[in-house]
Amino acid sequence: MKQWNVYLSGEIHSDWREQIKKQVSSQNLPIVFTSPVTDHELSDDCGLKILGSENDKFWHDHKGAKINTIRTKIAIKNADIVIVRFGDKYKQWNAAFDAGFATALNKSLIIMHNDDHQHALKEVDAAALAVTKNVEEVVNILKYTIDGKL
Amino acid sequence: MKQWNVYLSGEIHSDWREQIKKQVSSQNLPIVFTSPVTDHELSDDCGLKILGSENDKFWHDHKGAKINTIRTKIAIKNADIVIVRFGDKYKQWNAAFDAGFATALNKSLIIMHNDDHQHALKEVDAAALAVTKNVEEVVNILKYTIDGKL
Amino acid sequence: MKQWNVYLSGEIHSDWREQIKKQVSSQNLPIVFTSPVTDHELSDDCGLKILGSENDKFWHDHKGAKINTIRTKIAIKNADIVIVRFGDKYKQWNAAFDAGFATALNKSLIIMHNDDHQHALKEVDAAALAVTKNVEEVVNILKYTIDGKL
Amino acid sequence: MKQWNVYLSGEIHSDWREQIKKQVSSQNLPIVFTSPVTDHELSDDCGLKILGSENDKFWHDHKGAKINTIRTKIAIKNADIVIVRFGDKYKQWNAAFDAGFATALNKSLIIMHNDDHQHALKEVDAAALAVTKNVEEVVNILKYTIDGKL
Amino acid sequence: MKQWNVYLSGEIHSDWREQIKKQVSSQNLPIVFTSPVTDHELSDDCGLKILGSENDKFWHDHKGAKINTIRTKIAIKNADIVIVRFGDKYKQWNAAFDAGFATALNKSLIIMHNDDHQHALKEVDAAALAVTKNVEEVVNILKYTIDGKL
Amino acid sequence: MKQWNVYLSGEIHSDWREQIKKQVSSQNLPIVFTSPVTDHELSDDCGLKILGSENDKFWHDHKGAKINTIRTKIAIKNADIVIVRFGDKYKQWNAAFDAGFATALNKSLIIMHNDDHQHALKEVDAAALAVTKNVEEVVNILKYTIDGKL
Amino acid sequence: MKQWNVYLSGEIHSDWREQIKKQVSSQNLPIVFTSPVTDHELSDDCGLKILGSENDKFWHDHKGAKINTIRTKIAIKNADIVIVRFGDKYKQWNAAFDAGFATALNKSLIIMHNDDHQHALKEVDAAALAVTKNVEEVVNILKYTIDGKL
Amino acid sequence: MKQWNVYLSGEIHSDWREQIKKQVSSQNLPIVFTSPVTDHELSDDCGLKILGSENDKFWHDHKGAKINTIRTKIAIKNADIVIVRFGDKYKQWNAAFDAGFATALNKSLIIMHNDDHQHALKEVDAAALAVTKNVEEVVNILKYTIDGKL
Repeated sequence: MKQWNVYLSGEIHSDWREQIKKQVSSQNLPIVFTSPVTDHELSDDCGLKILGSENDKFWHDHKGAKINTIRTKIAIKNADIVIVRFGDKYKQWNAAFDAGFATALNKSLIIMHNDDHQHALKEVDAAALAVTKNVEEVVNILKYTIDGKL
Repeated sequence: MKQWNVYLSGEIHSDWREQIKKQVSSQNLPIVFTSPVTDHELSDDCGLKILGSENDKFWHDHKGAKINTIRTKIAIKNADIVIVRFGDKYKQWNAAFDAGFATALNKSLIIMHNDDHQHALKEVDAAALAVTKNVEEVVNILKYTIDGKL
Repeated sequence: MKQWNVYLSGEIHSDWREQIKKQVSSQNLPIVFTSPVTDHELSDDCGLKILGSENDKFWHDHKGAKINTIRTKIAIKNADIVIVRFGDKYKQWNAAFDAGFATALNKSLIIMHNDDHQHALKEVDAAALAVTKNVEEVVNILKYTIDGKL
Repeated sequence: MKQWNVYLSGEIHSDWREQIKKQVSSQNLPIVFTSPVTDHELSDDCGLKILGSENDKFWHDHKGAKINTIRTKIAIKNADIVIVRFGDKYKQWNAAFDAGFATALNKSLIIMHNDDHQHALKEVDAAALAVTKNVEEVVNILKYTIDGKL
Repeated sequence: MKQWNVYLSGEIHSDWREQIKKQVSSQNLPIVFTSPVTDHELSDDCGLKILGSENDKFWHDHKGAKINTIRTKIAIKNADIVIVRFGDKYKQWNAAFDAGFATALNKSLIIMHNDDHQHALKEVDAAALAVTKNVEEVVNILKYTIDGKL
Repeated sequence: MKQWNVYLSGEIHSDWREQIKKQVSSQNLPIVFTSPVTDHELSDDCGLKILGSENDKFWHDHKGAKINTIRTKIAIKNADIVIVRFGDKYKQWNAAFDAGFATALNKSLIIMHNDDHQHALKEVDAAALAVTKNVEEVVNILKYTIDGKL
Repeated sequence: MKQWNVYLSGEIHSDWREQIKKQVSSQNLPIVFTSPVTDHELSDDCGLKILGSENDKFWHDHKGAKINTIRTKIAIKNADIVIVRFGDKYKQWNAAFDAGFATALNKSLIIMHNDDHQHALKEVDAAALAVTKNVEEVVNILKYTIDGKL
Repeated sequence: MKQWNVYLSGEIHSDWREQIKKQVSSQNLPIVFTSPVTDHELSDDCGLKILGSENDKFWHDHKGAKINTIRTKIAIKNADIVIVRFGDKYKQWNAAFDAGFATALNKSLIIMHNDDHQHALKEVDAAALAVTKNVEEVVNILKYTIDGKL
């Protein structure tokens, strides 16, 4: 049976990825999920820890961001579906960047956010094939897309 | 003489585009600038004004955002250089989306923002060929890139 | 042994897909078939059922059509061969859309229709590598293409 | 000033193209329009007239459709914007084919049709950046896209 | 007015290119024609004359063929339409190579040959949008494609 | 272990494919070979046998050539290496077409022919990464490429 | 579990590839490594040994370099990550060529070199997602990228 | 008349670009030349001068190299022909990088170097359509390619 590759981009401060995986698993959907590194501290400091410290915060972040890009670029390029969740906190510009990157690669894009962000995300939503509010909607779309039933 | 196409994405609440154009003009650089529609109200309501009103705010925004995409997608695809400015206000997710879209199309990307946004923009900065803080730096890069001197 | 990916687009009101699968199975051809969701009612209402109701029929259909696109776009992009059948009923513009989409992606295209539609489908037929009238012809082409014999 | 390339696909039995051109001209928009050959009889018989007659109607149409494809494929590939109008008559599968072809090439797509066709065109509409009902809406979108005002 | 780029590949031992150019000129069609170097001796010896002699005939030909490829690859990549003529003499494998190269780049392909070569060219003809027998047919296709009338 | 996909294009009137497969098998190289249909009569008549007869030889051949293209286009697109052999008989324009098609798709191309065809094939040879004279050379290249030793 | 394809380009006179493979193996990372032929003498003489000798050193090298390209081009095209090491000896232009080739194909690029080469490699480093000094750093990046932890 | 875009990459410590331009000008060839910034000191320090100083030499070079990439990436993407000259001094890895980048974009590549570098450049030469030793050979190739005569 074909395996579907789904990349889970965006918010790393809630357990939405685990919820999706749990529900998908209980439905026996043949999905391989990928995601960015979701350990916030490690993600911020991977450059320092692997390649050494920098005096300048910009270069500290630059090295880490590029190392993280190795994983995320490959994951998006290999994905059938890219799901991007915008949470309540932080600027989350990397999530919007991923959505733009996935759009230019003609990936099937699903966006998750609550109503508070609706207006600010209108351009991102306009590029998506579905705009969802919660995990249940996402899982139902995955089930419907893969199984053809609900 | 070759004309360079430069797309100016992002913040629409300051006059940074006009400043760039003015300085570029005084330097006689052969650049054709494009930009999104920068009239905020019109940009928000173009869907309503052209295609009629919607009861639901989501669809109101959706129609408008898609119409705006006609202009922005063509501009980015035709651009040699994409400059994205992150200002002080709003979420500006469309700016980050444009940066991701331009990156996947292998455009030369220049980012503008002040130090406050440095950490939050690290993934976007990591995709750029230059990270700048003000109009002077941008214009100097354009001059250096086109004329080969400063 | 290599598996061939074949997408079956178009008419959903007859059992042509099942006939093809049955004959292909009896010939032991290594084909994985994909298709749009062929439950007409569910396909029309998937947006409503997953993401909630809309007052406006246009947006009702819009949400559903986009969700269906997640499945169909991935299937066509992954297909080696795209088979599009035009039946007797309905406008079937989505079938012609799929044929155009597949052509631009340089997929091997096979069209099925009876003689009544010949003139109206001439531009679509002109993009195809085979124009067929029934399941037997399609299966013979698949057998010949994969096995190299009849 | 940049010239915009706009391809006008679809219905050839009303004067919608001339109306668009007239209004665009009065607005001084820098657009170069392209279109399929709109002389219905000539379009049907170009194969016969240029390459000689065929006994079989299928090949008669096949030769003509391929010659017409030379013009339409080049026009769509060179277009910034593709506008596809579905009229009241005929199957118009070539119009839907063009919409699919343009979508896979990532063109900015605008669809025109009246309410009668709304449900049947939902998949095509879902790929568009604007769904319009008349010439005025199309021209306003072109004006807004090019001039950034209404 | 738009200029059309047409590449004339294949036979270099008759004056078919000049005939096409003459007829196209008298019809005022806005076409820029490109072609390989048609001076047979110079084409064979350009490697020798520019880069020096080789003892081995294979490398003599290799150097020349590569230099000729600079011109032909650029011309085909820039062409809207590629016309390939197969004459009566020689193997003309470079002509068939050009047809395959142009096909993979999704160019609009027109083939010219007389009936003697029909069976041997069936695969090449199958990739073409028109198969013609003489200059008049080619010019009529160009006129019809560009002007939309005959 | 990775499997290598190698397409064997060209001459169908000698047993060169079987020789290559036999030697490759004895070397335990992990190669999956694909090829066009090498039953000459069936290849010529597949259109007739599957889709019915034609009065006109051109269309007889056209239908068959297009059906054969389904197999060959998929095989070349999926190939890592394309090997094209030019034999002593026939025009073999389809072989040169395949070489051009593979070149535009940036495949690794190996050509086989004897010295008699050297000058006529110079443009085709110029696009190849190796020009070989016999099965032994081809197999050694495959072994060296895959195993990194001889 | 997904397998990652990593191409190891560059220096062939130290055992850095074996060190990476050994450490990766002890970490149980699911990586398939590819590399150029690292037997220097065989790599230089493969053209001669397979296709026969040449009097001219240029053509001797040319034949060999092209045969080596069959392997390296396929490996880079199939790679998720391309690692290029610049050692202390030789010009290593092929390593820099591989880095440029991989960059244009949008591969994730990691560069290895010691401080002596820092200035001379600045353009190559600027295209990389990580610039490393030793095997440990490379392996940590691979581990972090694949496992998401250190 | 068509203008040809030729990018002159590589050595910046001799006047080879000026010699080519002078000879091309005297031959009236319609070529627009582009090149990297050839002021060595300015090229090294552009990052510092535009974006401010860095304590760390690596980041000093990194900023400058990326700014230079804006110009060089655009120039190579827009070029019909890329000419890369390897001189006597320095490592010139950026030149080899450009050659690899241009090759992956399927540009027509011409290499210039003297005999001393022949063996070390064999992989780069193997990707080129011509390997030249001096300005005269380059200009003759340009003249032959554009004018079709010598």
